[in-house]
Amino acid sequence: MIQRFDKLQTALPPPSEPDPAGAAIVQELLGGKFGEMSTFMNYTYQSFNFRSRQKARPFYDLVASIAGEEFGHIELVSTAINTMLTGAADGEAGRAEQLKAVRTSLNPQQFIAGGAGTLVQDSNGKPWNGDYVFSSGDLIEDLTHNFFLETGARNNKLKVYEAVDHPAARALTGYLLVRGGVHQVAYARALERLTGVDLMKRFPSPRIPTDKIPECQPHIEKGLHRTLYRFSPDDYREVTAVFNGPHPETGEDLVVAEEPMPEGAPPFDLPAQEAVFAPGADVEEIAQIAARLRDAAGLPKEPTGVVAQDNGGIIGKVKDAVT
Amino acid sequence: MIQRFDKLQTALPPPSEPDPAGAAIVQELLGGKFGEMSTFMNYTYQSFNFRSRQKARPFYDLVASIAGEEFGHIELVSTAINTMLTGAADGEAGRAEQLKAVRTSLNPQQFIAGGAGTLVQDSNGKPWNGDYVFSSGDLIEDLTHNFFLETGARNNKLKVYEAVDHPAARALTGYLLVRGGVHQVAYARALERLTGVDLMKRFPSPRIPTDKIPECQPHIEKGLHRTLYRFSPDDYREVTAVFNGPHPETGEDLVVAEEPMPEGAPPFDLPAQEAVFAPGADVEEIAQIAARLRDAAGLPKEPTGVVAQDNGGIIGKVKDAVT
Amino acid sequence: MIQRFDKLQTALPPPSEPDPAGAAIVQELLGGKFGEMSTFMNYTYQSFNFRSRQKARPFYDLVASIAGEEFGHIELVSTAINTMLTGAADGEAGRAEQLKAVRTSLNPQQFIAGGAGTLVQDSNGKPWNGDYVFSSGDLIEDLTHNFFLETGARNNKLKVYEAVDHPAARALTGYLLVRGGVHQVAYARALERLTGVDLMKRFPSPRIPTDKIPECQPHIEKGLHRTLYRFSPDDYREVTAVFNGPHPETGEDLVVAEEPMPEGAPPFDLPAQEAVFAPGADVEEIAQIAARLRDAAGLPKEPTGVVAQDNGGIIGKVKDAVT
Amino acid sequence: MIQRFDKLQTALPPPSEPDPAGAAIVQELLGGKFGEMSTFMNYTYQSFNFRSRQKARPFYDLVASIAGEEFGHIELVSTAINTMLTGAADGEAGRAEQLKAVRTSLNPQQFIAGGAGTLVQDSNGKPWNGDYVFSSGDLIEDLTHNFFLETGARNNKLKVYEAVDHPAARALTGYLLVRGGVHQVAYARALERLTGVDLMKRFPSPRIPTDKIPECQPHIEKGLHRTLYRFSPDDYREVTAVFNGPHPETGEDLVVAEEPMPEGAPPFDLPAQEAVFAPGADVEEIAQIAARLRDAAGLPKEPTGVVAQDNGGIIGKVKDAVT
Amino acid sequence: MIQRFDKLQTALPPPSEPDPAGAAIVQELLGGKFGEMSTFMNYTYQSFNFRSRQKARPFYDLVASIAGEEFGHIELVSTAINTMLTGAADGEAGRAEQLKAVRTSLNPQQFIAGGAGTLVQDSNGKPWNGDYVFSSGDLIEDLTHNFFLETGARNNKLKVYEAVDHPAARALTGYLLVRGGVHQVAYARALERLTGVDLMKRFPSPRIPTDKIPECQPHIEKGLHRTLYRFSPDDYREVTAVFNGPHPETGEDLVVAEEPMPEGAPPFDLPAQEAVFAPGADVEEIAQIAARLRDAAGLPKEPTGVVAQDNGGIIGKVKDAVT
Amino acid sequence: MIQRFDKLQTALPPPSEPDPAGAAIVQELLGGKFGEMSTFMNYTYQSFNFRSRQKARPFYDLVASIAGEEFGHIELVSTAINTMLTGAADGEAGRAEQLKAVRTSLNPQQFIAGGAGTLVQDSNGKPWNGDYVFSSGDLIEDLTHNFFLETGARNNKLKVYEAVDHPAARALTGYLLVRGGVHQVAYARALERLTGVDLMKRFPSPRIPTDKIPECQPHIEKGLHRTLYRFSPDDYREVTAVFNGPHPETGEDLVVAEEPMPEGAPPFDLPAQEAVFAPGADVEEIAQIAARLRDAAGLPKEPTGVVAQDNGGIIGKVKDAVT
Repeated sequence: MIQRFDKLQTALPPPSEPDPAGAAIVQELLGGKFGEMSTFMNYTYQSFNFRSRQKARPFYDLVASIAGEEFGHIELVSTAINTMLTGAADGEAGRAEQLKAVRTSLNPQQFIAGGAGTLVQDSNGKPWNGDYVFSSGDLIEDLTHNFFLETGARNNKLKVYEAVDHPAARALTGYLLVRGGVHQVAYARALERLTGVDLMKRFPSPRIPTDKIPECQPHIEKGLHRTLYRFSPDDYREVTAVFNGPHPETGEDLVVAEEPMPEGAPPFDLPAQEAVFAPGADVEEIAQIAARLRDAAGLPKEPTGVVAQDNGGIIGKVKDAVT
Repeated sequence: MIQRFDKLQTALPPPSEPDPAGAAIVQELLGGKFGEMSTFMNYTYQSFNFRSRQKARPFYDLVASIAGEEFGHIELVSTAINTMLTGAADGEAGRAEQLKAVRTSLNPQQFIAGGAGTLVQDSNGKPWNGDYVFSSGDLIEDLTHNFFLETGARNNKLKVYEAVDHPAARALTGYLLVRGGVHQVAYARALERLTGVDLMKRFPSPRIPTDKIPECQPHIEKGLHRTLYRFSPDDYREVTAVFNGPHPETGEDLVVAEEPMPEGAPPFDLPAQEAVFAPGADVEEIAQIAARLRDAAGLPKEPTGVVAQDNGGIIGKVKDAVT
Repeated sequence: MIQRFDKLQTALPPPSEPDPAGAAIVQELLGGKFGEMSTFMNYTYQSFNFRSRQKARPFYDLVASIAGEEFGHIELVSTAINTMLTGAADGEAGRAEQLKAVRTSLNPQQFIAGGAGTLVQDSNGKPWNGDYVFSSGDLIEDLTHNFFLETGARNNKLKVYEAVDHPAARALTGYLLVRGGVHQVAYARALERLTGVDLMKRFPSPRIPTDKIPECQPHIEKGLHRTLYRFSPDDYREVTAVFNGPHPETGEDLVVAEEPMPEGAPPFDLPAQEAVFAPGADVEEIAQIAARLRDAAGLPKEPTGVVAQDNGGIIGKVKDAVT
Repeated sequence: MIQRFDKLQTALPPPSEPDPAGAAIVQELLGGKFGEMSTFMNYTYQSFNFRSRQKARPFYDLVASIAGEEFGHIELVSTAINTMLTGAADGEAGRAEQLKAVRTSLNPQQFIAGGAGTLVQDSNGKPWNGDYVFSSGDLIEDLTHNFFLETGARNNKLKVYEAVDHPAARALTGYLLVRGGVHQVAYARALERLTGVDLMKRFPSPRIPTDKIPECQPHIEKGLHRTLYRFSPDDYREVTAVFNGPHPETGEDLVVAEEPMPEGAPPFDLPAQEAVFAPGADVEEIAQIAARLRDAAGLPKEPTGVVAQDNGGIIGKVKDAVT
Repeated sequence: MIQRFDKLQTALPPPSEPDPAGAAIVQELLGGKFGEMSTFMNYTYQSFNFRSRQKARPFYDLVASIAGEEFGHIELVSTAINTMLTGAADGEAGRAEQLKAVRTSLNPQQFIAGGAGTLVQDSNGKPWNGDYVFSSGDLIEDLTHNFFLETGARNNKLKVYEAVDHPAARALTGYLLVRGGVHQVAYARALERLTGVDLMKRFPSPRIPTDKIPECQPHIEKGLHRTLYRFSPDDYREVTAVFNGPHPETGEDLVVAEEPMPEGAPPFDLPAQEAVFAPGADVEEIAQIAARLRDAAGLPKEPTGVVAQDNGGIIGKVKDAVT
Repeated sequence: MIQRFDKLQTALPPPSEPDPAGAAIVQELLGGKFGEMSTFMNYTYQSFNFRSRQKARPFYDLVASIAGEEFGHIELVSTAINTMLTGAADGEAGRAEQLKAVRTSLNPQQFIAGGAGTLVQDSNGKPWNGDYVFSSGDLIEDLTHNFFLETGARNNKLKVYEAVDHPAARALTGYLLVRGGVHQVAYARALERLTGVDLMKRFPSPRIPTDKIPECQPHIEKGLHRTLYRFSPDDYREVTAVFNGPHPETGEDLVVAEEPMPEGAPPFDLPAQEAVFAPGADVEEIAQIAARLRDAAGLPKEPTGVVAQDNGGIIGKVKDAVT
């Protein structure tokens, strides 16, 4: 079972200039073979399918807890894509010539199937599929896969970082490179423990030091490059038996955080895109119904959910600019 | 973000007679178009992609919190499949004629790609794919989809219940029919709130009363047919504004539980299946390494994870019986 | 545009012993690469995409009219599959152990996704897809494809005939072999007209004379092996400019029928399969609603649709036998 | 069985400026999950698979007759796409630099696999597939699906209307919005009859009044928004028992037309695109062969097929303009 | 470029009892994600896509030459499957009840699409696809992939060995386990050279010593477990710079063979299966044409190709036995 | 078995201006339904699956030897694509704004999954799949397929020739048109021999004379349009019994070359693309390791592999130009 927290693992910037072509490329980090759907689902099913887990508990705990973090990564990538698409479908519902962004996008379905929103597809518009999950049940082999998967994921994140300039994409890849690096180390260390192979010599892989990337540095300064979270209030405590020793690049100690997860940050409340009817062709109608229901249920007038404050009003300005 | 709890939403029986053909059919409830991967991923991405969520907060909270429950459902279905496959790959690793179950299975990849384990596929061996996710951004349309999806899911669960006799499959479908029914009601009620259409006349759909199913009754007795959980420690409290009023079949009040989630039950620690190298061709080697690591990390001798106690020794007996 | 006629191109037998394994194999003739979906859709889209059709009218008319016949073929294959599945899901809705046929089927989704019904898949459970349509716009090339497609289709029909004994499958393949043979000749003749190549030497292909098959003979006796229908009340009359000359096997004249289509035969009204809720878990409830609506609309008490009379009561007997 | 009529359901404009990017987007309305292939094939297979149809005749007749109309819709979308591509491949066959449009298209296969023609794909170039067909056999569930499908289809048509300005796309979406709206109402009404749920409150869905769209108005003026055709000379007369009562938006009576289908309009004879060899690298060679065959068969010199007259000579002017 | 040699890498037994279910499972070793199509195509495209190959020549030569061997592996797996299917389609062409084996097969298309022959599919009937090719261009990453791929391939071969008893399957897996093991070592050694990681500690992986398998022993005795062939008359000589040092399991020296490839063995000339028209419904007609053409071309009366001699007449006996 | 030769069948030009959009289109000739993967794999599997090959030896030899040539064609197309992508990813590894070419490509995965390299996909980014292989076992039918496949391949090559101007694409299509034409003739002739049908009337098909294409002429002058190679040192000599008689367009004799294969040409050593880490983020590190290994193995200082000399320094100039 899980419990959700209505927060992102890290703050992302508010919408600015829309970038549909970039948003189509970032899809690779969501639904590509090496995207976050793959990391999330691989570790999740490996944990479900783990046999004789009591005897191998530290390894089970490792895989199961990293799975927990990966949910937050599909959430982050989706948020970045949605941020990049905001403003591209901001026209009047039901009027001709209001949705021209579709014509220049690499992925028209982000607008036609989605509501200027994330799809579970890669950068070529091909849907993620369940055969991307490798869950052989053989622990050494599953871990070998996971190390390879994280390495491919790091490769893809670096390339997207180089290719897409939108602030949301930069912030996203900066964060994911750091966290993905932790998982890469974790699986390498687990393999070392099981087989004796000194995989720490493999870092960094690809051979680009993470701290070379400016967008990674704030996270490294907080120690996020060497910290594993359990993403569980009380379970998975045996990860400490695997995730320890020196970090392969910095030599600092690897640590398992006391707290279950990072503090995180609230997401921005991305504005309606009425030309794609998200959340409707007339958002005020929905708002009024919601207000009535809230009132009837004895809830306060203001929504209880917390979202990021766009103090500088960037969201509003973008809306002005594009209309 | 999420946090995981190392427990199932409901107890499932321990392994008994293996049933590979049944396990291949139950895959439909995991990776089929109307399986739990679809419910989990649809609501998850709809929550990620939800625009103007502050104005529509009660609906956002509803979708987001049901997504949280669905993770537990992919966990349950996987556990049932793994339970049904236990004992079918129990032979000696690397010896001929030890894995004959593959020949009679409807899905050889459960043994060849998996380790007598769950795949992210349907009952025809076709992988689940991301285009099963409908996330148009249009709230009314997404909810219409969700009601339709839950109805199709209920249809499929009923048929699997009729078709597969293994105790794990029966316990699984009994529970999922009750919980899926709650979600079906929830989305119907949400649509009523938004459009005024009296969807409660649609229940039960398909037209088979849930309480006719013996395996559903214990859960109904606990009120699980009319209770929604938030699956969050503090968020998603505005579901109360939507999920209320009488249950369409019993007339009882729909309620949102105070506690974030059901108490749940620990899973059985499913035994190794060495003919498929799960968790290895020699599980004791892994056990010894784990013990050493645990010791070095100052962890207690006994694993800290909690699993179900197989007091009657059924797992052992099955192992005897099949060897 | 089209108009439908509620009749089959030829009579098929009523349900008898159910044969799920056979029904899964017959799917190849529906949704396989060389199945009737392929013939129907290829000729349909080739007709839609036909450029400069006035200059090439006889060829346009040929392709367009054969497309018309192929609709009747997807209808026939579906009817045969449904007939073969009748009786396999005849248990009580919502009760355990009522749907065991799924376990022995090669295609569980015929019962779980379908209602003991046809799917748009092949014999391996793979869905038909739009890239099976070849529509290059190059007339000679499209016709070459069509001749190849019909040859592959004849190959597949012969094999299914050899493999599946159910009376509905035998009747189906007997008819389709004759009609597919006509289309094979038609495309060969069209290519002869355009290129001068003597393709009549290619018949029969595969090298099995159609009249060797007992189930083909009644149709050959009626001349159906050398007759093309226009499947249009008034259009496509220029097929006569292409479809003429001697039949390659019998030497008889090829003819274009005066009447638009064969007389056909009404289908049997296949009985409900309540274990799969088709057309519902309780068919009488639907019947009563329909009766009321019919009455309110001033329609006669008896349904106006015509279905085949099962005078010998075979459908009922089968139902008795399987329950 | 069907009979074809060599006419479109409504007139579409002749080719003008070619628009390959737009044509790639319009593919969503043909081969997308909510495209016309889906509506056509869903209702067609539901009618084939309909069990106990005599007892449920009005519902059978409804599904079967709407299927008949949908054939005309795949025909219309294809014609629009082909119209939009006309002029983009108008160069000399076999010469370099004659087919540069491919480079700027979102779907190169429209030119490489097709002959500047329609493919059975969606706007991302993914082929339509048979698993888009939902045919559970459960009448209420199939109708729920159909209502959902029509709602999604309306959503997609509206977005394509907003995104693509080519006159053929505008005319197409204007017509389809009106006719799709009728089917949406028809399935909603059928569900009302079976379950008592007042679905008329759901209109319009998405929440954009159809009469707001200028391109819809001429069709609304003819009453096409409230008229169902049987698309059969004599069958499916019991639709009147379901399709009646007030239209949800206008309050006017829903009516079943006496005549089987609309009058329709002949298509334009789209000119050859020789750079893609459609209908050949040298169309005059084909024309001469056709003329000889026609002559030998005693057919008149002029083709007997009827096509739209391009009195203003727009097709020719476009050809001049693009060369 | 390549040149072909009409020989197998190792001898396989002649047909004996047909085993369609086993043949369907062996497909995993051909078209599965870890099958020989994947090894062949991965290394082939990695060699095509290898940039700056002069600077990295020993690694280029390694990948390119192993690709050469893998062609022989798809050939071997296909031959084994075809051998296992021989006798299952041995009936009279065009007669009912001659092809019943299709009904009990797990993959009906081996008979319907194929001629009792190999398909490019896996054990679930899913076609191999080009996205199984990983060719990132990053040498370390590609080699990491290749080591992982070979490990997964070894896992799958071991399971198929355990599951399928047919003599052809046993001989096949015995040989492939030895040769795949060489490639696994080769990629591990290459990674050691590039990164310094001691991967030899990973062997055997999965943890089953190859020499435990009786069918592997003859090949180990010939030294095939430690010998790499260049599969080129003169190129790829720099593999010696990478493939050297001790074998991780036996400590013997790894060697690069002087001769380009193993001696190999001629295949059996698998007999016609006339019920599936392979190579035709009447093989003697083809034989006579071939004889005439051979004669006209001045070729000897006996075919010049070399095939294995079935001295004991097993092929004939099987034919007798199954008819 | 095969042996590889590290040479291309014909010389291709060195890299010049990069052309990602063109490279995405050329993918159709690699991984499209009618691309070289299809020709290579179809003939390869048809040869593996060929039953009773001694009786039909000349036909077996024909199919098997053409398969051998097709390997060289996937090599050529890949080389052309890689050449066209060279220079598009030439920036500094790990720095923002270094990989902007991805944004304008039609296939972002050429950069993200590949290293500015070929993928096994078509021009829409859809992976090649094994169901493109037709291997029915029926000789006449397989040859019919092959003639159709080569005709479709010629169609696609002509269109790509018209659409893409890059020198590598022009050189590629010029060569492939000539060689594909030989295979088209070969299969047509084989069908003539088996059935008596005069297929030579079908040439050219599509109806564009090959010698009209300037890039084809040098190859025609060498006689490559009428010469078949065996692609085997000693086998497949019976092709002479089928491939003979006059060429359908020129009337010259068809000949089987004495030498096994054409002389060929070395490929250019395409330079590193460091922004995509091909062959690494720092190619000199790899070069040094390779040099050490070469030295330790007693190999000469200079790499032993032969690559084309870029005397004019075009590769270097391009690198200058794009940086």
